[in-house]
Amino acid sequence: MQEVRSESRYMLRLETGEELLDALGAFARRTGIRAAAVPMGIGQLRGASLGFWNGRSYEEKRIDDPVELVALSGSIAESEGTPSVHLHAALGTADHSTVSGHVLGGTVGLLAEILVESFPSVAFARPMDERVGLKTLQLGPSIRP
Amino acid sequence: MQEVRSESRYMLRLETGEELLDALGAFARRTGIRAAAVPMGIGQLRGASLGFWNGRSYEEKRIDDPVELVALSGSIAESEGTPSVHLHAALGTADHSTVSGHVLGGTVGLLAEILVESFPSVAFARPMDERVGLKTLQLGPSIRP
Amino acid sequence: MQEVRSESRYMLRLETGEELLDALGAFARRTGIRAAAVPMGIGQLRGASLGFWNGRSYEEKRIDDPVELVALSGSIAESEGTPSVHLHAALGTADHSTVSGHVLGGTVGLLAEILVESFPSVAFARPMDERVGLKTLQLGPSIRP
Repeated sequence: MQEVRSESRYMLRLETGEELLDALGAFARRTGIRAAAVPMGIGQLRGASLGFWNGRSYEEKRIDDPVELVALSGSIAESEGTPSVHLHAALGTADHSTVSGHVLGGTVGLLAEILVESFPSVAFARPMDERVGLKTLQLGPSIRP
Repeated sequence: MQEVRSESRYMLRLETGEELLDALGAFARRTGIRAAAVPMGIGQLRGASLGFWNGRSYEEKRIDDPVELVALSGSIAESEGTPSVHLHAALGTADHSTVSGHVLGGTVGLLAEILVESFPSVAFARPMDERVGLKTLQLGPSIRP
Repeated sequence: MQEVRSESRYMLRLETGEELLDALGAFARRTGIRAAAVPMGIGQLRGASLGFWNGRSYEEKRIDDPVELVALSGSIAESEGTPSVHLHAALGTADHSTVSGHVLGGTVGLLAEILVESFPSVAFARPMDERVGLKTLQLGPSIRP
């Protein structure tokens, strides 16, 4: 992964073979980012896996063929001391139709361009919400730099 | 709704049962934001209603079942003294297909994470454009803080 | 096109008939932007053309009817001295289904609202990557203002 920073904004270039969730987690660890939004990501994914929350678990759809990453959205928080990356994606298939859901996994095909907008001096958390059975975003208090 | 701010950037957490358009309007009123973009929103929606503009009116599709909010995009302006929120969304259904359009309404399911990027000292307007029969965004002049 | 700027953030309003890629290229040339992300775009497109990369070329789908521009994502770089705009889009059709892919072209219908987040003092490049047969984003070094 390459990255360029301008104040609290980062542009990332992920390379062929990088796992999307792992790469963003490693980026957060390396930069010390504890609170960020991911408003943009394009490129190509392989072996993508998307989930639909049915109230108890994620119903998974795996798309083995390469797809266009058309929209990527999410957040980066910190859960139990490690980065917690939550992403949703819309993927364009060979017939130009669209598969969507919660990102369970996916590997970068040719490359991916991803924008990260961070919140300096803030930490988001993602504790388990026992009522719903999911880890949910908590907009934590400001932290000292 | 919870929110965290870093300069002109806001992350929002909407809770179960909040109406998406109303909640963003209330956020704009409370913070005094008169110009902003909404580049990111994920989570779950219930009772979503999406429109397709046919040149005269919005053809509505209502999705009663819960859906994944996969992409949320739009702007916040001020029209006749109150916030005017314009959103488009892509929604992932249980079979992982994608329903898209102009957001006519929708209620937050489990939660929603939304990014707002504001333009301080600027006011966007949304006056009626009689030629097309729609209120359209006007990038108004800078205002005094 | 109208535009409003707040520090490194720009909101654009494109008018009926403007070609999406050309308009963003002209914007980059006029403002001198050499590195930016496009995290948000909504509105209506006509004559949209979307591509799916099959490993050798873009398989094209042209949608002549007006569509809702639901998600627009991409980057602005500089290639051989001129702006290079790379966009992916999800488009909502009259039946509220979704067509997605790499943006090969498209004309603004009623209007389009587009957010550009720039990286001042940075230049992205987009040289040909002979291995894959595509121009790919390079996150270039910082430049003097």
